[in-house]
Amino acid sequence: MQNNSRFTLSDLAKLAGVSTSTASRALRGNPIIKQQTRERIQALALEHNFSLNAAASRLRTQRTHVIAVILNLTEHTEQSINDPFLLKVVGDLNQALNERNYELLLSNSFMAKDDWTQYFIKSSRADGLIVVGQAKSDTKMIAAAEAGAPIVVWGDPHASAKYTVVGSENRLGAKQATEHLIKLGHTRPVFLGDLEHAEMGERYKGYCDALAAHNIPLDDSLVMSTDLTYQAGYDCINQSVKTNGLNFDGIFACSDMVALGAMKALKERYVNIPVDVAIIGFDDIPMAEMSHPALSSIKQNTKLAAEIMVTELLRQLNGEPGQSHAVGIELKIRHSSDPTRT
Amino acid sequence: MQNNSRFTLSDLAKLAGVSTSTASRALRGNPIIKQQTRERIQALALEHNFSLNAAASRLRTQRTHVIAVILNLTEHTEQSINDPFLLKVVGDLNQALNERNYELLLSNSFMAKDDWTQYFIKSSRADGLIVVGQAKSDTKMIAAAEAGAPIVVWGDPHASAKYTVVGSENRLGAKQATEHLIKLGHTRPVFLGDLEHAEMGERYKGYCDALAAHNIPLDDSLVMSTDLTYQAGYDCINQSVKTNGLNFDGIFACSDMVALGAMKALKERYVNIPVDVAIIGFDDIPMAEMSHPALSSIKQNTKLAAEIMVTELLRQLNGEPGQSHAVGIELKIRHSSDPTRT
Repeated sequence: MQNNSRFTLSDLAKLAGVSTSTASRALRGNPIIKQQTRERIQALALEHNFSLNAAASRLRTQRTHVIAVILNLTEHTEQSINDPFLLKVVGDLNQALNERNYELLLSNSFMAKDDWTQYFIKSSRADGLIVVGQAKSDTKMIAAAEAGAPIVVWGDPHASAKYTVVGSENRLGAKQATEHLIKLGHTRPVFLGDLEHAEMGERYKGYCDALAAHNIPLDDSLVMSTDLTYQAGYDCINQSVKTNGLNFDGIFACSDMVALGAMKALKERYVNIPVDVAIIGFDDIPMAEMSHPALSSIKQNTKLAAEIMVTELLRQLNGEPGQSHAVGIELKIRHSSDPTRT
Repeated sequence: MQNNSRFTLSDLAKLAGVSTSTASRALRGNPIIKQQTRERIQALALEHNFSLNAAASRLRTQRTHVIAVILNLTEHTEQSINDPFLLKVVGDLNQALNERNYELLLSNSFMAKDDWTQYFIKSSRADGLIVVGQAKSDTKMIAAAEAGAPIVVWGDPHASAKYTVVGSENRLGAKQATEHLIKLGHTRPVFLGDLEHAEMGERYKGYCDALAAHNIPLDDSLVMSTDLTYQAGYDCINQSVKTNGLNFDGIFACSDMVALGAMKALKERYVNIPVDVAIIGFDDIPMAEMSHPALSSIKQNTKLAAEIMVTELLRQLNGEPGQSHAVGIELKIRHSSDPTRT
C-alpha cells in the first residue's frame, strides 16, 4: 500500500554495502560493475520499489504543477468521459487541484502509452497521476507505483493494492440499498450492473450480504450484467421483461445512469414505480434528484474523495508514503423506492 | 478574424524594405536599429499580427500534443466547472481532441497567468488554446491571438472579434424559444439570465426580437438578471413571486440549470406548469429530458461545435488562417411549455 518514496539511493547503497556511485552504476546496468553485484543491487531496488529515474524526477526543482487524471476506460464499453458521474469526479478533482495551484491534464487509458511513468512523469507532462477506475486490470498502475511515480487511484479501497487507493464503501452502500428495498417489502430485487469491475464486484457482494441477512436465497436469474450506461440499463430491463415477464419487484442498479435507463423501460410498460417495482441507483448524480420519479440512490461523496486524492498525491510528491482511504456513503431515499417520499 | 499565421518574418522584412535580421532585431528592441525603424517595423508586425516568438514556437518540431482548454469563469459567480453544460463542453472537446491524438489540459482564467501565450505556449504546456466563454472582457484572448498563439474561442460567433470564434446561433435560438411561448398564448414571458455576457446579451436581443415580431411591448419588470446557476434561478423567481405575485405567464431562461431552479420555485408554490407558466431553457443538457415536467430547451450542438473548434485549432497549428463558425440550434419542445408533449 506504500510507495516507499522515502527510500533513497543512499539507503540502497548502504543496504547493499556499496558506494552510492556503485549503486547508481549497477542500476544503470554499467558493465564496469560485476554482473553478480549488478543483479543483487537491482533485486534490492525492486524489493524496495526504488527507481533511479523516479528518484531523479522527484529531485527536479522544475515541477510542471500539472497532475494527469487518467480515465481508466475499458474497451468494448460505451461508458465515456461524457458519463455524468465521471464528469462530476473530473470536476471535483479539478477544483481540488486548482485550490492547491495545480492544473489537470485529462487523459485516458487509450491515449496514454503503456508506460505511464515514461509518458507522463519523465517526459514532464505531469508531476503525478490520479487514475479514475481500476478497470479489469491494474498492471499499468502497479508498474507506475513501482517505478516511483506519485500515483493515487480511485477504486476499491478494501482490496490489497500496491498503490494508494481512495474509494467509496461500495459493499456497505450496496448492502444498504438492497436492504432498503427488502424492508419496504421488495423481496425479489434485481442486481443490475457489471460484475467484471472491482468496485462493481464489491457492490454485488453487498447485494448478496443483504439477501443473506434477510434469509432470501440468491436467484441467479435476477443477477443481470450490463454496461454502465443509460441505454444499456434500458435495453437490459426491456429485454428481461419481454422474455421473462415482470419476475422481479425491485432493482438495485450499480449506477444512476443504469437505474434511469431501467426506469424508462418500466415507465414505457406502465409499471407502477415504486409500488410494483422499487428502484435504487448508486452515485447520486444531480439527475437523480430531478428525474421523475426522483431516484433513490447511494451518494458517493466525490467532493471529499477528490480532496483526499489530491492531498494524498501531494504527500507523495513531498516524499511521504501513500495511505489508502475508504470514503463513507449515504442512503438517499426518494420516490422511486419509497411512495411516502417526493 | 484571421490570425495571419502564414505571414512570416521574411514577409515582414520585405514589406519594411529591410533584411530579416534587421526585422528580427527591430522586433527584439535591439538599440543597434534606429528607433524610428524599430517603431515602424513593430507597427507593421502589429498590423499583421506577427510575433517573433510565436513564429519561433510554430517552428518547433517538438510539439506537446496538449491543448489547453481555458474555462473563462467570471469572478463573483458560483458558476463553475461543475456546471453540467460546461462539463458537457469539456467532455465533447476531450473526445474531439483524443480522436486527433491530443490531450486536454484543463485550466481556467483564475489559474492561468494573464499572459496566456507565455504561460501555455512558450512554456510548452500546450500547443494551442481553446477558451470556453468570452466572459465580460476578451483582452487576454486578443493578446494571445495577436502574439500568434493558436486560439479558438467558444462564444458569440457574430460579434467582430480578433480571434476565431465558434458558437451557437444565440439570438436566433432565444427568438425561437420566446416565440414558442408566445404562440402558445404566453404573452408575458420573463427573460431570466445574465445580461453582462456576450452570448447572453445576444439571447436578450432574440427575446426582444420575438416580442417585437408579435407587437408585445417590452416590460422591463420581466427582465430579470441572475447568475447562471440552479440556486440563482430558484432564488430569483422565488423572490419575484414573493414581491410582485405571479405577474408573468412564461419564462425564457438563458440556461437549463437556471430554468430548472425557476421550475422548482414555481412547483413549491403549486403553480401549474405549463398551463399557468410555460418554461423553456437553453442548452438542452441531459437533465432537461429527465426533469419533471420534462424541460423544453434550445439545444446547443456541443458535439459538432467541439469538432469544429478542434479542426480550426489544428488548422492554425498548421499555419492556416482561422475562420469563425456559427453552429445551428434546435428547438426541443417538451411538457414544461407544451401540455400536449411528454
